[in-house]
Amino acid sequence: MRELLLLALPGIPEIVPGSDLAETLIAAIGRAGKTLQAGDVIVVAQKVISKVEGRQCRLSDVQPSPRALDLAEKVDKDPRLVELILRESRDVVRFKPGVLIVEHRLGFVTAGAGIDQSNVPGGEDIVLLLPEDPDASARRLRHGMYDMCGVEVGVVINDSFGRAWRNGVIGCAIGVAGMPALIDMRGKPDREGRPLRVTQIAAADELAAAASLVMGQAAEGSPAVLARGFPYAGQTGAAADLVRPRAEDLFR
Amino acid sequence: MRELLLLALPGIPEIVPGSDLAETLIAAIGRAGKTLQAGDVIVVAQKVISKVEGRQCRLSDVQPSPRALDLAEKVDKDPRLVELILRESRDVVRFKPGVLIVEHRLGFVTAGAGIDQSNVPGGEDIVLLLPEDPDASARRLRHGMYDMCGVEVGVVINDSFGRAWRNGVIGCAIGVAGMPALIDMRGKPDREGRPLRVTQIAAADELAAAASLVMGQAAEGSPAVLARGFPYAGQTGAAADLVRPRAEDLFR
Repeated sequence: MRELLLLALPGIPEIVPGSDLAETLIAAIGRAGKTLQAGDVIVVAQKVISKVEGRQCRLSDVQPSPRALDLAEKVDKDPRLVELILRESRDVVRFKPGVLIVEHRLGFVTAGAGIDQSNVPGGEDIVLLLPEDPDASARRLRHGMYDMCGVEVGVVINDSFGRAWRNGVIGCAIGVAGMPALIDMRGKPDREGRPLRVTQIAAADELAAAASLVMGQAAEGSPAVLARGFPYAGQTGAAADLVRPRAEDLFR
Repeated sequence: MRELLLLALPGIPEIVPGSDLAETLIAAIGRAGKTLQAGDVIVVAQKVISKVEGRQCRLSDVQPSPRALDLAEKVDKDPRLVELILRESRDVVRFKPGVLIVEHRLGFVTAGAGIDQSNVPGGEDIVLLLPEDPDASARRLRHGMYDMCGVEVGVVINDSFGRAWRNGVIGCAIGVAGMPALIDMRGKPDREGRPLRVTQIAAADELAAAASLVMGQAAEGSPAVLARGFPYAGQTGAAADLVRPRAEDLFR
């Protein structure tokens, strides 16, 4: 009987650059009365990873380029923030007043290059960029946890992304380690024995969304979730697998 | 401590037009050793709802229009299937060989209008359309379960949708009852006391994705999931809330 349990980890302290995240998470799992098992997945909010990796920037240190000044006027945003968004991006995908959707240098199409101003201590001047290489961050955390407790876990780093066509944000995987991101169903039979129409399942995104529900967004939330029962443990992948190449994408 | 449990319901028999779905699900919950509690959410695959509602069509009964014949050649699909896709849709959004993305009459932007050929008994000739009004289907199921066991549950009907920019499909909510679909966070403080940047969370989509992970797609899967611990129980909404109006959408 397939069962998936998602547990928000309690009492995670404020994370600062250089915090030992593996140790912090293992302590929180202990506080939740659980012991890590092989096949468990730890889902961690992007914000936590960015903080550990010192990805804070001060807006007051940023000198906007002429391009940023021009675009900032069109989207009605702080030109220094727009400058950071452009530096973090390969391309501007769409914009209108209040909205600036870009292709992040990692390939994610997202509003404002995933740069975050909420839940960052230090006031309005501090913003938080996405991790430099979130798949590598996920692998480091996975290895750190293995070194501390000898258990092979999967790791997902999630962030809230908007979507085309649908209202609201959902959790998406921006870093994955020790588990698959995309599941290939080609050739698998359906209940009638015919090959399945759906060929690839974005399983890491489905798990990222599930964890986001449990994390919450507000003050009472938790930025880390223990997931037990992820049904595709054992294979490996990366969040990069989830990025549709621009040439194959009908919406860029 | 926030905790979400997702349990694939075992032993759901083949569903036929007119099956008593509330009874079938309550029996499956019993087989899983659980008793329904207020605030539980039942997530049911679209396919099951479409079957109960007799949304099967025979391709051999369909006469393709000239428009369908022309488009079928461009997308390299059966003209009778393309005819059904066009009848189910308001607009063709994008197409290329092998891909036909439309705006379904319910507003969902989806490949092939959500018409399904897998897991449908009766061979290649039978296809399954989306329910006529999945929010109404969800409400009916919720009322049916209340009538049988006196417990107020939430209901989500999910389907696998592709996305712009990202590979793979994920579960999305196409019908919702007895729970919110979108959560408005405007004005809520973050951990630092500042207003949250993210203003709307597509919570029903996050739950639909979580349930999809547990359902699986292949022969060994289950088309219904019991979700316990959905954190926003008590409010109400509809899957229609998740559809971004065309005028506000930058990608149509």
